[in-house]
Amino acid sequence: MCVDMVERAKSGHPGAPMGMADFVYVLWKNFLRFNPQAPDWMFRDRFIMSGGHASSLLYSMLHLWGYELPLDELKKFRQWGSLTPGHPEYGEIPGVEFTTGPLGQGLAAAVGMAMSAKCLQARFPDAPIKHNVFVTLGEGDLMEGVSQEAISLAGHWCLDNLVVLFDQNNITIEGPADLAFTEDVRAGFEARGWAVKKARGNDHEHIENVISGALFEYYPTLIICETVIGDGSPNKAGDSSCHGAPLGVDEVRATKRALKWSNEKNFFVPDQVRTRFDELKNEKFRQYRQWHREMQIWRDKNPNDSRVLSNLLQGDNSEKTISAPDCSKISSAATRVHSGKIIQELSSSNAQLMGGCADLAPSCKTIIKSSSFIGLEGDGVESGFIGRNIHYGVREHAMAAIMNGIAVYGWQLPFGGTFLVFSDYMRPAIRLAAMMQLRVVYVFTHDSFWVGEDGPTHQPIEHLPALRLIPGITVIRPANFIETEMAWKWALTEANGPVALALSRQTIPEFELPDDFKPEQVLKGAYEVYNSGDGGGTKVNFLATGSEVSTSIQCAQKLSDENIPTRVVSVPSVEIFKSQAEEYISSILDHDGLWVSVEASSQDWSSLIGRNALMVRIDHFGASAPGSILADKFGFTAEAIYKKVKNKL
Amino acid sequence: MCVDMVERAKSGHPGAPMGMADFVYVLWKNFLRFNPQAPDWMFRDRFIMSGGHASSLLYSMLHLWGYELPLDELKKFRQWGSLTPGHPEYGEIPGVEFTTGPLGQGLAAAVGMAMSAKCLQARFPDAPIKHNVFVTLGEGDLMEGVSQEAISLAGHWCLDNLVVLFDQNNITIEGPADLAFTEDVRAGFEARGWAVKKARGNDHEHIENVISGALFEYYPTLIICETVIGDGSPNKAGDSSCHGAPLGVDEVRATKRALKWSNEKNFFVPDQVRTRFDELKNEKFRQYRQWHREMQIWRDKNPNDSRVLSNLLQGDNSEKTISAPDCSKISSAATRVHSGKIIQELSSSNAQLMGGCADLAPSCKTIIKSSSFIGLEGDGVESGFIGRNIHYGVREHAMAAIMNGIAVYGWQLPFGGTFLVFSDYMRPAIRLAAMMQLRVVYVFTHDSFWVGEDGPTHQPIEHLPALRLIPGITVIRPANFIETEMAWKWALTEANGPVALALSRQTIPEFELPDDFKPEQVLKGAYEVYNSGDGGGTKVNFLATGSEVSTSIQCAQKLSDENIPTRVVSVPSVEIFKSQAEEYISSILDHDGLWVSVEASSQDWSSLIGRNALMVRIDHFGASAPGSILADKFGFTAEAIYKKVKNKL
Repeated sequence: MCVDMVERAKSGHPGAPMGMADFVYVLWKNFLRFNPQAPDWMFRDRFIMSGGHASSLLYSMLHLWGYELPLDELKKFRQWGSLTPGHPEYGEIPGVEFTTGPLGQGLAAAVGMAMSAKCLQARFPDAPIKHNVFVTLGEGDLMEGVSQEAISLAGHWCLDNLVVLFDQNNITIEGPADLAFTEDVRAGFEARGWAVKKARGNDHEHIENVISGALFEYYPTLIICETVIGDGSPNKAGDSSCHGAPLGVDEVRATKRALKWSNEKNFFVPDQVRTRFDELKNEKFRQYRQWHREMQIWRDKNPNDSRVLSNLLQGDNSEKTISAPDCSKISSAATRVHSGKIIQELSSSNAQLMGGCADLAPSCKTIIKSSSFIGLEGDGVESGFIGRNIHYGVREHAMAAIMNGIAVYGWQLPFGGTFLVFSDYMRPAIRLAAMMQLRVVYVFTHDSFWVGEDGPTHQPIEHLPALRLIPGITVIRPANFIETEMAWKWALTEANGPVALALSRQTIPEFELPDDFKPEQVLKGAYEVYNSGDGGGTKVNFLATGSEVSTSIQCAQKLSDENIPTRVVSVPSVEIFKSQAEEYISSILDHDGLWVSVEASSQDWSSLIGRNALMVRIDHFGASAPGSILADKFGFTAEAIYKKVKNKL
Repeated sequence: MCVDMVERAKSGHPGAPMGMADFVYVLWKNFLRFNPQAPDWMFRDRFIMSGGHASSLLYSMLHLWGYELPLDELKKFRQWGSLTPGHPEYGEIPGVEFTTGPLGQGLAAAVGMAMSAKCLQARFPDAPIKHNVFVTLGEGDLMEGVSQEAISLAGHWCLDNLVVLFDQNNITIEGPADLAFTEDVRAGFEARGWAVKKARGNDHEHIENVISGALFEYYPTLIICETVIGDGSPNKAGDSSCHGAPLGVDEVRATKRALKWSNEKNFFVPDQVRTRFDELKNEKFRQYRQWHREMQIWRDKNPNDSRVLSNLLQGDNSEKTISAPDCSKISSAATRVHSGKIIQELSSSNAQLMGGCADLAPSCKTIIKSSSFIGLEGDGVESGFIGRNIHYGVREHAMAAIMNGIAVYGWQLPFGGTFLVFSDYMRPAIRLAAMMQLRVVYVFTHDSFWVGEDGPTHQPIEHLPALRLIPGITVIRPANFIETEMAWKWALTEANGPVALALSRQTIPEFELPDDFKPEQVLKGAYEVYNSGDGGGTKVNFLATGSEVSTSIQCAQKLSDENIPTRVVSVPSVEIFKSQAEEYISSILDHDGLWVSVEASSQDWSSLIGRNALMVRIDHFGASAPGSILADKFGFTAEAIYKKVKNKL
């Protein structure tokens, strides 16, 4: 079937599906806990095809097992509007657990799923909710750095509910895998605390025994599957020519003949196969009903825990109404400090919130203080997963990819911190979060050259605009306490995709808000924070974000002292602002006079305020010196901006 | 001294420098081949401090050894304009071999340096040019995925000229390293083909013996240095509190007392230390002169090889004059195919060019066909490094970081290929290349949704604008053969920083160029490729790049058939265009009428053509279907653009 799919599409990857078919068949038949009629069953096993180019195998399995994926869809493999795109797409196809294709991401997400599953199980140790996460992957996945980071963490956390089937076919696109990959895979995994097993392809009983053994391990397990790429193809098996191109009409025929298929028709499923799968499906339904009964018994016995569990699974239980804090009581601080305080408040009302940081927690202020860190230092294997904080180590990429897995798994809302400049390490995973519309929050602190002494390698310049470019992400850069609080609340209650918070390292002076200020205004994405009223001369409109809002207000006040009318618009989030009604956008932007943008990044604001605006920005790398010195050198003081505005007027 | 530097700056990292001081001292004294008076000596050993936050130790060594780094500069640690920024900056400070700080990058670059050194040595096996690359790093470096990728490649390539000193102080910012790092480091490195040794701190003779042993290994060697963070500090040694914050005045005094320093003055170097370093320096000078004599003997004996070596080291020997190919002979093809042909031509005239790809060479067309791949499959250890192609495996990040090391090492100009969408995996290394102004070329193919069937995970949307944001990079997206050729020539002869080529997967029809077309126009970054002449009505100005140039010309022709005057400006490179004289820029942009931008990315062109321009772009994720179907669905056919323009007119 996979062969036919690739053949008809005239493109795709037939080799890996053919090699791994036996393993995946045995896994689904004998081990995978699932119900095709309830694909969202929370306690199903997860099956992640990390090497997503083998998608035709996944689609074939989903079809044969009776997921809503009719044969007609399989015939439209890799075509517009079909349910069988080139790589599996989460949310589009029932039974697809994660969008894979960019290598390494599926494995790292599976680590997040396995971890999140253990966090839930740790709270209800007696409930029949334990289950497993299975992954298939190839050499390419293992070569990626993000995989290596995730493998290290899985071993560190001792995720015994994670089983990885490594399709060792020794072939990559450029040829034999040993052209670039000569690691001792077994020793490498064992060094990271994994159990490792070997299995030969084709022999189903043998495969069954090996997987069965893996589930008895106290560690995450790697099964090295000795397969042949394009297995079954008489002339192309074992060769890189069948990795990423159709076999060709003749070879497809030869393959079917070699496999002794009675019928050479395309997309042909013999009756006995259909019958066999019907039997297997019935067995899965039986198991599912059995589980349901056990669960009901547990729920009856543990009414309180049952209620807690339901609440946790129901999703977000934070307050939906947004109340304004008493701003007069807020003292000036860095927005990362504000954020740290807000996290404490939110985490107590929102049990789903799961924190973490890439070894910068003391700087990023990401720790949920009322809880512990996950890990095995507790008084038992499971108790280590009660915590709501994660030490990711210096592994930004795995952090982002694991957060994707946590978010997809379904009951936690993960946030993770690092410096904004290191968002570059995380982009492939952030992009997937955006594509899958996952609810994750990135706490990016140290958000401009104001980082200071650490110098250019640690000072973001292009990162704010570069993040804003990712379709579907929301970037919020708050200017004070209330904007930070509203940003967090928006992330928890309104967002339907990833949210990146950009927070300052340095203290930002709290500024006076207009009398008629309402916190809801922040969630319009842009709003007026200062207006001197009309006066003589040309009006000056400032558009500023984050730490530059207070600077702009200072500058505006100075100008209005000279009778130049000014207003300052704070823009915590361009994406949210652009999603407002045309009328609101006009009410903010359609103002005559000079427009001045102030943001300590290289953002080009022409599309909002035109080419003739004065843009106070920085489009070169930073330097090592105290932040205030840099502000002076780079022209970001109120005084320097004032001079630029006067020149322009 | 390090302690005083951090103390005076009131910020920085005292712990690691104190722990590693003994190792670095012994390494420099007994092993490192260098001459402070000739810091650019090609055959010096390289010393890379991958954990760049320990910079104060590096600066102290450079100062004591007599590099041009006076004590006054050490006193200005982390201050504006000093030669002692927070993290080491390449090009700013004599003796600093690489800009480090973002963890993992230094190690991966060192792998590139060691590899490039072996490539040179392989050509002159008898010349006295063998030398080593030494790296210091900490747990943080090892946790990063890019390190893991580079470690795997170093082992695969058997880089016996690479020695890594791992500062195992068991402390990270969040606390003990085992909070997130419990790997068996020795087993992990051995699994990747490294030799591993252990050494205790403090005992100089022991350290000397271990390093000496490492240099006899046939493999890259890891030395696990058992150190104590903040060694010498009576109250803070071994604690994360001394990782990233000053010790404090009292603790500094206590430390100096504990070390029995006779003088508690700050930045005090005792006379006997100065005298000792003078002796050591003289020994290094003696060694350097000795090497010079040996080299001269080799040069006298091998006049031909000597000449070849000098030519190779002299840098770029490609033709500086740019000749136009006969465009009439060029048939339509994908620009990646054009690029593949051009690489063959350029690599024969430019011996420095070093190719490679992240397991996509057949797709990216990056192979230098006249040469082999590096590796050990040759008939001897060294002969494997004669090749000019590199199998990086599926390790995009390490590829970019290793290319940085190759470029810095000094005799090769590396290029590396992958799909444009995977540039996300490489951004931290690309940013460093831009910061260090390294000459590397990224061959990014499959540059838009035209990728087709592989679907949204493989279709770049935001990547072109996101790359253009990096300060100092040049992005070139050619539209036809001649633009591809000029792009390559510019990269090899004009660029003074990294160049990213964005090349199409799909065939682009060759279009007719104006009679007065000159290839040099391409290197203005933007130029007119079509002009219908004046006629009735509003003039329509197209601004297009890459595959959208020919589409725009088709559309323009259709409009001009209706007597609507049109012109099409091809913009192969925004960065090059913006660097032109104001006058030239005006001559291209200051044209009345409607402006229409056409690029299959989410680029916002407002800053060039204003907010009221018609922008044909794509700011959402792609889909899985043949490219031509997507062009139709996403509005990128000449017909669809024509309709949009007519609507707007």
